[in-house]
Amino acid sequence: GENKDDAVLDPIAEQQKRRWILIRAVLGELLCTFLFVYVLCATAANFVRLKTVDNPTIGAISTGFAAVALIYSFADISGAHFNPAVTFATCVTRKTSITKGLMYIGAQLVGAVLAALILLATFPGDDFNGKTAAAAVAIKPANDANIANAFLTELILTFILVYVIFAVAFDTVDDNVKVVRGSKTQGNNLTIYTTSGATKAGFAPIAIGFTLGFLCFMGGSVSGGAFNPARVFGTALVGNVWNAHWMYWIADFLGAGMAGYAQKFFATKGKAN
Amino acid sequence: GENKDDAVLDPIAEQQKRRWILIRAVLGELLCTFLFVYVLCATAANFVRLKTVDNPTIGAISTGFAAVALIYSFADISGAHFNPAVTFATCVTRKTSITKGLMYIGAQLVGAVLAALILLATFPGDDFNGKTAAAAVAIKPANDANIANAFLTELILTFILVYVIFAVAFDTVDDNVKVVRGSKTQGNNLTIYTTSGATKAGFAPIAIGFTLGFLCFMGGSVSGGAFNPARVFGTALVGNVWNAHWMYWIADFLGAGMAGYAQKFFATKGKAN
Amino acid sequence: GENKDDAVLDPIAEQQKRRWILIRAVLGELLCTFLFVYVLCATAANFVRLKTVDNPTIGAISTGFAAVALIYSFADISGAHFNPAVTFATCVTRKTSITKGLMYIGAQLVGAVLAALILLATFPGDDFNGKTAAAAVAIKPANDANIANAFLTELILTFILVYVIFAVAFDTVDDNVKVVRGSKTQGNNLTIYTTSGATKAGFAPIAIGFTLGFLCFMGGSVSGGAFNPARVFGTALVGNVWNAHWMYWIADFLGAGMAGYAQKFFATKGKAN
Amino acid sequence: GENKDDAVLDPIAEQQKRRWILIRAVLGELLCTFLFVYVLCATAANFVRLKTVDNPTIGAISTGFAAVALIYSFADISGAHFNPAVTFATCVTRKTSITKGLMYIGAQLVGAVLAALILLATFPGDDFNGKTAAAAVAIKPANDANIANAFLTELILTFILVYVIFAVAFDTVDDNVKVVRGSKTQGNNLTIYTTSGATKAGFAPIAIGFTLGFLCFMGGSVSGGAFNPARVFGTALVGNVWNAHWMYWIADFLGAGMAGYAQKFFATKGKAN
Repeated sequence: GENKDDAVLDPIAEQQKRRWILIRAVLGELLCTFLFVYVLCATAANFVRLKTVDNPTIGAISTGFAAVALIYSFADISGAHFNPAVTFATCVTRKTSITKGLMYIGAQLVGAVLAALILLATFPGDDFNGKTAAAAVAIKPANDANIANAFLTELILTFILVYVIFAVAFDTVDDNVKVVRGSKTQGNNLTIYTTSGATKAGFAPIAIGFTLGFLCFMGGSVSGGAFNPARVFGTALVGNVWNAHWMYWIADFLGAGMAGYAQKFFATKGKAN
Repeated sequence: GENKDDAVLDPIAEQQKRRWILIRAVLGELLCTFLFVYVLCATAANFVRLKTVDNPTIGAISTGFAAVALIYSFADISGAHFNPAVTFATCVTRKTSITKGLMYIGAQLVGAVLAALILLATFPGDDFNGKTAAAAVAIKPANDANIANAFLTELILTFILVYVIFAVAFDTVDDNVKVVRGSKTQGNNLTIYTTSGATKAGFAPIAIGFTLGFLCFMGGSVSGGAFNPARVFGTALVGNVWNAHWMYWIADFLGAGMAGYAQKFFATKGKAN
Repeated sequence: GENKDDAVLDPIAEQQKRRWILIRAVLGELLCTFLFVYVLCATAANFVRLKTVDNPTIGAISTGFAAVALIYSFADISGAHFNPAVTFATCVTRKTSITKGLMYIGAQLVGAVLAALILLATFPGDDFNGKTAAAAVAIKPANDANIANAFLTELILTFILVYVIFAVAFDTVDDNVKVVRGSKTQGNNLTIYTTSGATKAGFAPIAIGFTLGFLCFMGGSVSGGAFNPARVFGTALVGNVWNAHWMYWIADFLGAGMAGYAQKFFATKGKAN
Repeated sequence: GENKDDAVLDPIAEQQKRRWILIRAVLGELLCTFLFVYVLCATAANFVRLKTVDNPTIGAISTGFAAVALIYSFADISGAHFNPAVTFATCVTRKTSITKGLMYIGAQLVGAVLAALILLATFPGDDFNGKTAAAAVAIKPANDANIANAFLTELILTFILVYVIFAVAFDTVDDNVKVVRGSKTQGNNLTIYTTSGATKAGFAPIAIGFTLGFLCFMGGSVSGGAFNPARVFGTALVGNVWNAHWMYWIADFLGAGMAGYAQKFFATKGKAN
């Protein structure tokens, strides 16, 4: 028991453990992105089939509730980014290494594509005005929106998302409330945080999930409201819908990076030089 | 006071206490399944009577909120499974013994049938197009959905539910955040967890309840969206609606078992062999 | 500082402090019942004026959110019952003395009547089909519901509410998670609980508030869905609407008392006699 | 590391640190008010563009979720007032100095105006019946409401908001649950609170956010439902809509001040004189 945990004494065992934690994190990122994107797509496809009154509350509650549940489920496995823009922001602020960041983004894209494929298996295509389910729920800018407005909208929405994530999950300025990031032997760059109720970060999944909820209300009529390039990529590839696809990568990464730096500014403790 | 608690010294008293805890758990499972299924059925029946615009948000919020409240209320009594698929997953992953699992599933079915009967007492039958209230709110696959799609939908939805339950309530990979399961003298197989705010499991009812909420949005137009064989069984028996009843048992158990194993894989700590 | 807190040494100061705590509790109960009933009535009156599509989600979210906020605000002042049926259940289970229970119920009725009066001041009467706002939002059984169904509906809904309150706020079977009720010198009968995140009771306002939310979906088409005699009394007196008024007292008290005893049964620790 | 933290020994470094914490708080107040007001305005503008059924649930959920997320994000930076009425109430109850209060209110107004300007950039004006987006989502009393009703409505709604904020975030009567306000060397007047789960204040953002949610349901048909002069000012200035603008300042400040004193009365511990 106690003795085996103390693997620092055995460098090979420790290395194997670290490798396993990394593999598990990447696979966890794949699984949680798959689940998250599937929830969003299946919710949308379900209501196209039900032909009920279009109710935007449904998408927002589904997204928000799913994010809360999945972040609590995967926070201590992978950090539960499920969004390349979030991973990018952790890279530019040096919370994640470039190598690990690329592995995460790759896993997120695979997960999102799998979600769009399983969507086709659960919602066969002929219910969606001749389109497949994946094409029917793909994200694209509104027809009457110009690209500059859509770009700015995506940038701001992703800024809000990443700012909240960084502020509630990663850093805190209160010396009395330290956020535990993984065990001591693993170092900071695993970007894993506990969601124990004993720290402010215990509430992080609620704050982040609710943010994903309200963001759904804000930009749908302009940019389609993605704030997540993996969500866009999955249905784009499977449904072959590539309208302004580049925009979701550039605007979302830009907003995410800005949020990372902005939060870093506020997290600075203002010590004497 | 203090001395009587220390019942380990008295094996007969200890045995009586363990038996009482088991009886209470089974009765608690009956009561919480009764309440949960009654909430779902009464919500649906109420809105058939009100003849308002069909609003799927209502069912989702009612289900999600009820799950949050009932899991907080019964987690330390029975673990608050209220779903045979959840109990099945705890059996295959050896968190619950077969005997206790069968007792739980029996209690859940009795609770669900009682809920459907009380529904008839509160909503007399002639308001529901000649059907009884129980028949009107029974779950069945959509008429235009093929059984393979419905099966896969039930499987995935139950997978998501059980994965979240296992990830947030039972196991955690963080050594610093131990989930307390009952008192030491009772052993692990009682599958009871505390919802104290001091551990990650304090938030488990919120994560699980929100999951039951968003699942309501995802599969209604295909499988009817049960992800709980007891919910289906109660109104099936009382309302005599047996469409594809077997599917909810096989698909839900299959998805639940897969989720149990998947989460076990991620919960592995990767120690050196 | 430290020395003055230790008022046990001075019996007169201690008695004055206890009297002040009791007065504050009764006044707190008046204020929180006033606020709670005003939120419910103003929400309903606002949507009569707005003439929007009747959306039952609004009432449920408003009620649930208000209960969460007000219980967190008043739990450590008065216990935040704001419902005579809840107070009655704490009396029959000996958590509150008869004297204090009567004072609470009196304060709740005064608060509810004040809420209905202020409603008239903010929503002048001629907008509500010739009725005053208080009469327009008064609770009564549905015209086509028979009294037995309405009675049973009220009884079950109040049972659910009080069971959840007792299970999450007052007692817990886990020895490791003690709920603190007031300071040691005050004794148990003040029925005050802390909502610190360190105990299960920290989540109690969320569980109870969500319960009040989903209960709104369940019985409106039968009993009107009160599960709170004070809510009924306030608008009944000011709006002069007394349909089956006795029922809300008898059915709600009966359901509340049954819930109190049921939860006591489950909270029993099963010690050897 | 350890030694540098102990800046009390170096009065100049300590002064610089205090100045930095104040600057950061004012800038944080600007940023969080900007984000909050932008979320509210963009949500409203988005649904004008989408031309869906008017659904008041959307505004309430968006407001409530945004408040939860932003209070968790900014509570330990600035206290996350984002409302001049809240800041005013902390001034009259001596939690914030007049100087700092004025700086906060200035920052809030700048943030709200920036939000209205960015709204114009993301939602160009010709979609809103010839009005700009800022004018379209500006708050004003209902045409058929008299000013006395609107005034009283704003006063009560702000009273509820500020009472909940004070009761859950700042003061608690339970000696066992102390709310930490900033570090010891900074003194009380920084009005910063931690949202650690270990104290009741960990749930404060949920209670306050839900309050902002349900308040949205209560007064829209009378006063427009602002309970925040900065929200009104931002779109008033950019959209040039000044209907009864003074009312939102006077009524909201009055309600806020009354709530501050009322909560102070209940927070009194009743010690012997």
